Formats: sequence, structure tokens, C-alpha cells
Amino acid sequence: MSEPLSTEPYKGVRDFYPADWARLSGVFTSIRTTLSTWGYQEYQASPMERAEIYESKTSEEIVNEQTYTFTDRGDRRVTLRPEMTPTLARMVSAKRRELAFPLRWFSIGNRFRYERPQKGRLREFYQTDVDLIGLPEGEADAEIISIAHAVFNSLGASDADFTIQLNSRTLLNVAMNALSFTDEEQSGYLALIDRKKKMSAEEFAQKRAPFERDGIDPLALIEARTNLDVDGEYQKVLLLIQKLSARGITNVVFDPSTVRGFLYYTGIVFEVFDTNTENPRALGGGGRYDGLVSLFGGDPIPAVGFAIGDVTLLDFLATHNLLPENTSAPQIYIGTPSKEDISAAVLFAATLRSSGIRVFSNLTEKSLGDQIKDAVKRDIPYFIAYGSEEAAGKKVKIKELATSSEKSLEKKKVADYVKKYA
Amino acid sequence: MSEPLSTEPYKGVRDFYPADWARLSGVFTSIRTTLSTWGYQEYQASPMERAEIYESKTSEEIVNEQTYTFTDRGDRRVTLRPEMTPTLARMVSAKRRELAFPLRWFSIGNRFRYERPQKGRLREFYQTDVDLIGLPEGEADAEIISIAHAVFNSLGASDADFTIQLNSRTLLNVAMNALSFTDEEQSGYLALIDRKKKMSAEEFAQKRAPFERDGIDPLALIEARTNLDVDGEYQKVLLLIQKLSARGITNVVFDPSTVRGFLYYTGIVFEVFDTNTENPRALGGGGRYDGLVSLFGGDPIPAVGFAIGDVTLLDFLATHNLLPENTSAPQIYIGTPSKEDISAAVLFAATLRSSGIRVFSNLTEKSLGDQIKDAVKRDIPYFIAYGSEEAAGKKVKIKELATSSEKSLEKKKVADYVKKYA
Repeated sequence: MSEPLSTEPYKGVRDFYPADWARLSGVFTSIRTTLSTWGYQEYQASPMERAEIYESKTSEEIVNEQTYTFTDRGDRRVTLRPEMTPTLARMVSAKRRELAFPLRWFSIGNRFRYERPQKGRLREFYQTDVDLIGLPEGEADAEIISIAHAVFNSLGASDADFTIQLNSRTLLNVAMNALSFTDEEQSGYLALIDRKKKMSAEEFAQKRAPFERDGIDPLALIEARTNLDVDGEYQKVLLLIQKLSARGITNVVFDPSTVRGFLYYTGIVFEVFDTNTENPRALGGGGRYDGLVSLFGGDPIPAVGFAIGDVTLLDFLATHNLLPENTSAPQIYIGTPSKEDISAAVLFAATLRSSGIRVFSNLTEKSLGDQIKDAVKRDIPYFIAYGSEEAAGKKVKIKELATSSEKSLEKKKVADYVKKYA
Repeated sequence: MSEPLSTEPYKGVRDFYPADWARLSGVFTSIRTTLSTWGYQEYQASPMERAEIYESKTSEEIVNEQTYTFTDRGDRRVTLRPEMTPTLARMVSAKRRELAFPLRWFSIGNRFRYERPQKGRLREFYQTDVDLIGLPEGEADAEIISIAHAVFNSLGASDADFTIQLNSRTLLNVAMNALSFTDEEQSGYLALIDRKKKMSAEEFAQKRAPFERDGIDPLALIEARTNLDVDGEYQKVLLLIQKLSARGITNVVFDPSTVRGFLYYTGIVFEVFDTNTENPRALGGGGRYDGLVSLFGGDPIPAVGFAIGDVTLLDFLATHNLLPENTSAPQIYIGTPSKEDISAAVLFAATLRSSGIRVFSNLTEKSLGDQIKDAVKRDIPYFIAYGSEEAAGKKVKIKELATSSEKSLEKKKVADYVKKYA
């Protein structure tokens, strides 16, 4: 016989065993519920996208170094989506005449980036994307940040657990224009401050120097607010923070060095951070991207949105003891004293199933003692041994495994009992 | 400005707009609920798999012509999973010492095959895989077929709507051995009868001729049942059909030409078909594969499972008028007479959201008449115009858009009202 195959998954991706998946899908269920109360509806698309849609206006780092791009058997270039926004813009543009704007849409799914696997970074991760399309800045920006806040709240996080760092690309652009930056200087400067948090103060001081004019760079200009245009844009950001505060959202702070990696942002940008510095990576973020949809033709459609990744989110929930419990385990184990009892036990199990109970049926010849041990190992709370006596009679004994207490119950009352207690 | 990008998705895959996704995810929710009552728990894995796991024991047609396989930036060969079973076998083998057998697992997710797109066939489709691992033939086979049956029942299908065609690879093997087929003849013969339903009777007669011995081929031998070993295996299939019938499953029929494409099946194999011949493709199918897990090392672990694809399933549900309704639309639209009312309206919307109501907030300066038209277009059943009077008072007027009837209601009673009627 040949060498056995390796049981490892592909490098940098995860296998989700049932308990892992129950936890992650519990998080998604909570997020879906919150988003639906905001009137958002879920859409989906294939992870296989035409490669060209990432090449015109996204993060150059991602396109050049981090995409999974290959050529199919028909010579088409395919990219496994590294993010959802270009797909969203494509879908919106395709039906722009039929759709009722504004669109309130979200999508939860996997994204792919060829990165070096490390804490908080994998080659496949799950992301929740939430977008409000067809409304200009102002109320729409406030809604998107409110929703990001509500999602964390609904997962059990309080305002002390996370911070929303808010900035405006427009503000940065006005400041860069006030210092007469060329296009090249603008993209170089944005890339620099996007990496600021990963540098020492010395390194940043050294790297910002070439961008200074008379000793002042755009960040310093924003902090000084001596320039009228810069101050005007700054006041707009402040107004948004005040509006959110009036809604009870008090953990939004202005941070002029928040830029986000993607090139397509045009207005506000924001990132969500854990207040516990053990998780230094952003938990999510987003911003306004008014030009992206029109890359697919037609007039620009204003849009704002955000995304939350699962890897850093799970770290955050674990740190704050907010991980949901596994709720997918069966509620009752139907054991059988002997093999001959299985047929009748399966019929009894069917009556419980038709009442919506999650039933695990024994189909083995294990002893009843071993079946009870098996039920305990599986975290199943109730056990019934269903033999010829139970098949012939009207009652069964239901055992609560946590306490080993047993109770006689009419068969037709088992479903209600389990529904109530399991 | 450069040419706009095309809005088409990649060839052969689908964009799911919210109404489309609500329908498909409604089907998945129904399937998940049914499977959980059988004690099955969901697992997941990345669609990116190491290419080698498909090359040893799966369908040769799929590996050679239909996989998406590429080389990553680190020179690893990656395949986008064309099916889930090899991944499942890998995951089970990786934790075989820790897991409590039997495993009752399922997974719902996308699969990828480079096929010529046509009715019922796409390059990306969703599949529900259900597997019972660690039990030999007999009760486990009966459970798996019962579950396939229950899934269709729970989607609203009756026994008149679909048929389960059952066969046994063992039976075919015994018949082929009785005629002393070589390995090459065996795989050639299996491939031939797998394609039987796509051929005319004449074509099949011509192609089976080389496999006849004294005018009889394995299928004819099975039909005759003159050979004792063949008849013994046939009786086992019959017993399974009787067992299912005793459970009220009456649409299982023996079909000796059902083989399934994959090479790894070792025992029963079955396929589910629409009784309406407009949908000639199998709606799903599966079988026993006792050897697959041990390809990853260790002793063989017996296993049986089945899968249902979404493309043919949606065709089936549409044909029989069983498609679920879209339930993701918001329940109420909060309109605003003027822009100044938005802040207060958003706070009112927040109180409804905290009661779990799906609320769509107007953030535009459209007239109230246009907002009502907008709500109708979005299939939102209720509408409230929230102006300064409503903000100051205790009551609002709630409009039922289907009838245009209006009702005055205390603000704090709106959530309960909408929950009850929307």
C-alpha cells in the first residue's frame, strides 16, 4: 500500500470541527439578527471573481502580493476574492436600473489572501461586510458607524471594551493639497501613515521628514488646524462624533492617522480596536467609497460600509469572555438494551424529531453503561433506554445525566419535557 | 477615463441578490433544522484543499477534466474542492483518536467544478453533505436513506414527488466477479452503466456487448438472480427496502444500474430523482465508502453518506411549487416628513430594533408620498411617518400598506403590533 496521505489542511486555513463551527456560526447568527433589525438584507456571490476587477482601484499591496490569482482551463484569469467591496460594486452596477436605492445590504463569507500565517492573519478568513449604498455623507455615515457599534454590543461588548477610531480621507486630502503634494507624494504619504502604528516613534519621525514643508507635514497641519479648509473638514468629523454621542455611542474618537489600506475610500474612514492591547490589530473598519460603483459604468453612486473579520473578532470575544456556547449538540440520547430494540427505538426517536427535538439514536451493540458514557462524552443532557418494555408500554424513564436522577414519564410527554429543560 | 469594467460575474457562477439568497438560505435553514433533529452537527473547511487528496481515490473524470487546480505563490498545488467527502475523510482521520464515534456530521457549502455551464450544472454550486461515520452497513445505511427522505419531506415534498433508486456496489462486484472480470473490465463496466441513463437503448446494447459472457453481462446476471452469491447480495438490498418501508418510506426502489461516479463507494449507493421527468438529473445521492478514511492512515473506518446539490434542488422545488418565501425584507418603514425629523426618527427606530423588529429608516429628503411608494416597492408591510408631532407625543399612526388602512397606536405598543402582524 502507498504512503498514507497527510491529514493537514492546506497551509494557513482552518478546519472547523462541529464545536468550532457552532461557536463561529453562533457569532454569525447574532450578527445576522442585529443587521436584519437595521433593515439590512444578505447577498452572496462566488469567491471566484474575474481578476480585472481588483486591478483598477484597490490596495496595490493586495493585488501585487496577496491575491490568489490563476488562469482557468478556458484561459480566463480568476481571483479568489480578497475582499467583498469590488464584487458588491459590480453587482450593484449590474442592476442599477432595477434596484431600489438606498440599498442596505450585508454579506458574510470567506475571503482569501496569500499572507504569511500569523496571529490574527490567515489565508482564508470570514468577513461580515455591511454597506449602505445610494446616500451621501452625513446620516448614512452615522448609520454605518452606529451599526458597527450595535454589532459589537449585540455580541456582549460594552463601550469600555472597544474604541472606534474615526478619520476622513477628505480631511487628509485637503491637508495634502494645502501643502501642494503631487499625486505620487499623496499616495506615498497615505501609505506611510497607514503603517504608522506598526513603527517606532523614531522610525516614523524619520520617514515623515521628506513630507514636511517648512517643518510641517499634513498630520501636523491637521493637529494645528490653522488652515481654514483643513479646519472646516475637521469640524465635519467632529459633528459626526457629536451626532453619534447623542445616540449613546460614546467610544468614537478622532484619529488623523487612520487611513485604511484600500485606495478607493473618498470620505470618512474608521477602524474598531480592542481596548485590551493584547489584540493590537483592527477588529474591523470601513469608510465611504463614492467612486467605486462607477468603475463599472454610469454615474457615481455614493456608498459607505464596513467589514469585520472573524479571526481578530474571535480573539476579541475570547479575551472578553464573550464567546457563545456550543448549542448544536443533541438534546437526548435514545439508548437500546439490545440490537433487537433498535427498530422500535428508531420509531420512538422519529416521534421526538417531529416535535423538533435534536435526538441521537444508538445504532450499536454497546452495553447500556457504555452508551451512557458515550452520551456524557457528547454533552447530551438526557438519556432514555428504550427496550422491549418501553416499546410495549406507555412510559419511559428519562435520565438527567448531569445529576444521574431519573424520572418516569409518559412517552408522549417526553418531547415537551426535553424542550423545557434541555 | 478608461473603459468601464464588465459587470458580469465569472463564467458559470451566480450572483445572489438578496431575494435570491433569502430563498436559498431559507432552504438551507429548513435542511439544517431537519438534520439537527437527527443529531447531526455541522462542520466546515476551506474550499482550498491540497490537490493530492483528490488524486488517489475519487472520480477520474473530475480529477482530470473538472477540477480547479493551481499552484500557489509558495509552489503548493491547491484544488478548489469539487466535493466534500475527501475533506471529511481527512478531518476525521486527523482526529480519529479524540473523536467519539459514530460521528453524525453535515456540511453545507460551495463546491467547484470546471464544467460546461448548462441547465442544472454550474461551475460553483452549493451542496449539503450528510455523513454517518463509524458504523457498518445495516442500521446506519437505513438511517442515511431515512434522512435523505426526511430532508425532502421537510421541504414539502411528498413520496409522489421523488424516488430513491437504490443499488449496491457489492452486488455489482459479486456479479462482475462471477463473470471473472479483470480490474480493467470492472472499471470500464461501472463507467458504462453509470452513463446508461444518458444513452439510447441501442447504444447501450452495443456498448454492453463486449462485457457479455455467453450472452450475459453482470446486469443481466443480477436480473436473473440464478447465481447464489448474487442472489444473497440482492436479498440484503431487498431487506433494506423492507426496513425503510416499515418506517413509512415507500418510494425506495431497487435499480441495478445506479452506480454513482465516484470510485470510493464500497456498499450501498443511491440516487434521488424527481418523478417529474422535466428534471432528469439526480437531485442527490450517496452511498457507503468504508475505505476512504484509511487513505489518511490507520485502520479503515466504515462510513455512509449522501449529498444534495442546490441547483437541481431549486429546479425541483420550483417545479413542485415548494420554494420558500423571501422572509428577509424589513417589517416596518420609518418615514420622515422633513430632514429635521431624521434624528428623532432614528431614535424611535432604535427602540423598535431593540425589540427585534426589522426596521428600514428613511434618511433621504424624499416626500412622504415617495417614501410610501418606496416602502411598497421594497415589500415592507407597515409604514409610520415620524415627524415633530410624533416625536413630541405618545402616539403614532401605523399604515398597513397592502390595504392603506391606518391605525393610531401608542409608540410603546408598535413593536408588539408589528411582531404580531408583520
